[in-house]
Amino acid sequence: MKLQGIFPPIATPFDHKGDIWKVKVQHNVEKWNRTGLSGFVVCGSTGESVLLTEAEKIHLWEWVAEYAASEKLLIAGTGVEGVRETVSLTNRAADMGYKAAMVRTPHYYKNLINNGPAQMLYYRAVADQSKIPLIIYNWPQATGVDIPPDAVAELSNHPNIIAVKESSGNLEKVMQMIREVKPGFNVLVGSAPTLAPSFAVGAVGAILAFANAAPYATISIWEAHRTREPEAAMDWQGRISHASQLVTTKYGVPGLKYAMDLMGYYGGPPRLPLIPPCPAAKQEIEQAFADLRG
Amino acid sequence: MKLQGIFPPIATPFDHKGDIWKVKVQHNVEKWNRTGLSGFVVCGSTGESVLLTEAEKIHLWEWVAEYAASEKLLIAGTGVEGVRETVSLTNRAADMGYKAAMVRTPHYYKNLINNGPAQMLYYRAVADQSKIPLIIYNWPQATGVDIPPDAVAELSNHPNIIAVKESSGNLEKVMQMIREVKPGFNVLVGSAPTLAPSFAVGAVGAILAFANAAPYATISIWEAHRTREPEAAMDWQGRISHASQLVTTKYGVPGLKYAMDLMGYYGGPPRLPLIPPCPAAKQEIEQAFADLRG
Amino acid sequence: MKLQGIFPPIATPFDHKGDIWKVKVQHNVEKWNRTGLSGFVVCGSTGESVLLTEAEKIHLWEWVAEYAASEKLLIAGTGVEGVRETVSLTNRAADMGYKAAMVRTPHYYKNLINNGPAQMLYYRAVADQSKIPLIIYNWPQATGVDIPPDAVAELSNHPNIIAVKESSGNLEKVMQMIREVKPGFNVLVGSAPTLAPSFAVGAVGAILAFANAAPYATISIWEAHRTREPEAAMDWQGRISHASQLVTTKYGVPGLKYAMDLMGYYGGPPRLPLIPPCPAAKQEIEQAFADLRG
Amino acid sequence: MKLQGIFPPIATPFDHKGDIWKVKVQHNVEKWNRTGLSGFVVCGSTGESVLLTEAEKIHLWEWVAEYAASEKLLIAGTGVEGVRETVSLTNRAADMGYKAAMVRTPHYYKNLINNGPAQMLYYRAVADQSKIPLIIYNWPQATGVDIPPDAVAELSNHPNIIAVKESSGNLEKVMQMIREVKPGFNVLVGSAPTLAPSFAVGAVGAILAFANAAPYATISIWEAHRTREPEAAMDWQGRISHASQLVTTKYGVPGLKYAMDLMGYYGGPPRLPLIPPCPAAKQEIEQAFADLRG
Repeated sequence: MKLQGIFPPIATPFDHKGDIWKVKVQHNVEKWNRTGLSGFVVCGSTGESVLLTEAEKIHLWEWVAEYAASEKLLIAGTGVEGVRETVSLTNRAADMGYKAAMVRTPHYYKNLINNGPAQMLYYRAVADQSKIPLIIYNWPQATGVDIPPDAVAELSNHPNIIAVKESSGNLEKVMQMIREVKPGFNVLVGSAPTLAPSFAVGAVGAILAFANAAPYATISIWEAHRTREPEAAMDWQGRISHASQLVTTKYGVPGLKYAMDLMGYYGGPPRLPLIPPCPAAKQEIEQAFADLRG
Repeated sequence: MKLQGIFPPIATPFDHKGDIWKVKVQHNVEKWNRTGLSGFVVCGSTGESVLLTEAEKIHLWEWVAEYAASEKLLIAGTGVEGVRETVSLTNRAADMGYKAAMVRTPHYYKNLINNGPAQMLYYRAVADQSKIPLIIYNWPQATGVDIPPDAVAELSNHPNIIAVKESSGNLEKVMQMIREVKPGFNVLVGSAPTLAPSFAVGAVGAILAFANAAPYATISIWEAHRTREPEAAMDWQGRISHASQLVTTKYGVPGLKYAMDLMGYYGGPPRLPLIPPCPAAKQEIEQAFADLRG
Repeated sequence: MKLQGIFPPIATPFDHKGDIWKVKVQHNVEKWNRTGLSGFVVCGSTGESVLLTEAEKIHLWEWVAEYAASEKLLIAGTGVEGVRETVSLTNRAADMGYKAAMVRTPHYYKNLINNGPAQMLYYRAVADQSKIPLIIYNWPQATGVDIPPDAVAELSNHPNIIAVKESSGNLEKVMQMIREVKPGFNVLVGSAPTLAPSFAVGAVGAILAFANAAPYATISIWEAHRTREPEAAMDWQGRISHASQLVTTKYGVPGLKYAMDLMGYYGGPPRLPLIPPCPAAKQEIEQAFADLRG
Repeated sequence: MKLQGIFPPIATPFDHKGDIWKVKVQHNVEKWNRTGLSGFVVCGSTGESVLLTEAEKIHLWEWVAEYAASEKLLIAGTGVEGVRETVSLTNRAADMGYKAAMVRTPHYYKNLINNGPAQMLYYRAVADQSKIPLIIYNWPQATGVDIPPDAVAELSNHPNIIAVKESSGNLEKVMQMIREVKPGFNVLVGSAPTLAPSFAVGAVGAILAFANAAPYATISIWEAHRTREPEAAMDWQGRISHASQLVTTKYGVPGLKYAMDLMGYYGGPPRLPLIPPCPAAKQEIEQAFADLRG
């Protein structure tokens, strides 16, 4: 399976009581359907998956599958700490038509994971039992665990592991993975602030929170890269840099949701303990995204 | 509510298919009933709570409540990332007779938690909606987040937050919390290798993984402290030091479960991605625990 | 050689042009001579040794040796990154009558030091060539390198390495070292906020920045420990806790120097890039030390 | 002043007694004179400057100035912890004809540097008193301190601070600095494994340990970038990736010196506590560099 282009890990719309708001799922997905996004990741970190119950995840998968245009590739975020539950979630998503599962690194028992075979074993055990192929998902800023390039290279030989999403923003690591993985294995990145150079060094796609609010800007970088216009890619990169930092590193999911509201999508409130940005943060986000609408 | 003495965060017994083994829950709890342990924490980190489904947690709470002697205080580990689900779990446990809930720090969205009000807000929101009082649970080695002493001091003023379990092993922090919290607030520790000095500086109790396998040794330290025999406490501390490091820092839950098997409790296998200790580790554990049985 | 009791790593007095002020060295040392301090460490971290030239270090050693009472043990801080220069400095100090050298862990080439034999080799090479015995000095908060307890235990077998000063404040580590080092090897600590519990677990002495400004308070803890009055030790510990945090962790050497000025010693200005505390910090220090003068 | 192209921070040749070997300085510099290297950095981290005495640094500066071809730009590594000594060293180098001083971030008193104005103040105080302009040098992997992009941007307004050498390998940070510094300020990088993408995002030059042993390979990347051949730059990048990791991250200065010996330069032994690579490491280096000689 070939993964390429830009995928948003979609934000989960909640109403003001905190329940998932189905009609807003529809609104957002139908609006994204009209862009050049390659597909959707449903129940990733940006989707506040750690704040959802299992039942809610299944509803979301179902609804997005219903509204997504047929050419959009569907990816489910299914990784939890245990092998057993991850497999169960992955196979539920597979039954609903999802083509791949994005599985983040287990990380709670850090000491055992960093000093032993648990990490490799986790991915192999999940991959062995899953009906759809896996995407390794590494985001050390949240998990406190960083899967090393040679582990990814070794896992790339498993027939049911097809990609990695590297969200650290570490280009040296991205380059090393590209050199060492099995040919055909997809190295995707997850950091908008280093998107253009990631493509320049060989990444084939990206799963970007920022693409929820500003899909065209990220697709422009991808297209500039594909048509061999590195200056244009870097120019677009410069234009998104500030806005993309605000809604990832600086203000996170709540900031992104506010930006979605500004850009014609439904963002709405996050779930507690996440809280909406303060007025000063909102203003900063408004200014940064004003430049991207013009 | 006064918490004091030693509480094991009980290990969850699985059979060899990986399901919770009810009869072994009974075996362990009835054996612990005959010790001087002050109570039980059910579904903590040692209980592999991050590898359990919600339904499994509820079964465990039910079974332990059924088998525990009436004088044992029941504490439920209910903390997950979201306020909503943590409250829901806490109130389920309250309905089953649990007297307090141990709630670990939320940690996935580290950046937002470390640089804003999310952490305080989380505990306040959960405490406001919970039918039973809360114990703040801090284990930075797993979560990558460390709640500062002044935050604990401030939260100690909430009428429904009654204790902290500080598992970092950082004595300076324990001392600072003891000085700064509201009088009557219970500072418990969670690190067996520094147990005797923690009591010496004023901790009133401990929630110790190691107590699953070696309750008498930990109770001996507590009793030596209560009867003002610091040399005896330090002597016992010396005797448990190696064994307690092996089944916490070094080999974690799988090592502890193996030690339980050696000590007449049922440990059994952990859930994947945790795996049983290798033969060399087993031998190391056997030697260390042999000294504690004599 | 037996090291015990309290040693201040003495602050270096500068005049307002930034030169070492000899007459203030004399003033401070003569005042400390009248206390129960066990000796002096000259050119440690508190002495701003990283901001001194080699010539200045030699002057300081000379002057302190001249003014110190004969019963005070003289220790020179001689550790720099290279073996060659550390040996040279150590032997200069030996020639001036210093009885031991405190040698901090090398740390600049962290990657090589943490993943190879460089650290052990450094201490052995320096010890082999030094005329006086060594004290291993570990302060990971400054160096970013943490020498593990088993390395200290192994080095304790070298006939010319007689002690460790552990400044991390990590009690678990202190306890492990005490259990594992060669009998007679001196485990000293360097963290005032955990002084009483450090003695309770077996440390035989302490090298404390805080003792520059408040020698009596630290000696009181030591004496309470020696006379088996743990409550009195903890009581004193509570009284110094805030003040000692302010002049170590929070405001560092500049804060300590200000406290020295308050307590009748000469502190004076630090060298750039260290700068005197701001007015608010000064006020905080004044309040904390007022309680210690009464 | 315009800095561009490739500069080696030159390794310091020692003879087998550990003294600086003047004739080998001459050999190396004269061989580098015949390459397209833009100049030399003398007494940087690669030059083992933390293992040299002040007198040795001055000798090295003198000798390199004597042997360097007139078109090579001379840069002195002069940064030590204190302002006073850094200024003194910088002005000595200026008197010997050095055109700029590379000054690493002070880092020993980390707590004060990370939480206050000490870092900015250090650079301003040194720049105010220096006869030659400064290059800020950031290598967090060694110092444990990371100067943030906005601090560099603010310092770029000082008339006597003209450049930064960013050695973290963090491309996102490099991009942010390039966007925020004063026009004309030179952003150089110090990480060979990310050289081509660093140029792609706008870095104007590089100071590379790896260039000691393989100047042509690094110059090839620079030339490919200048002539707008990004594929050729990436191709060269792929060819140096393994070798450059070996002699920086993995085996450090001792590994680099061994590679220099292989490539016709004099590397020789490092100073203790650095030690020559073990036989297996040597073999790994031989294989990696064999590909670069062909």
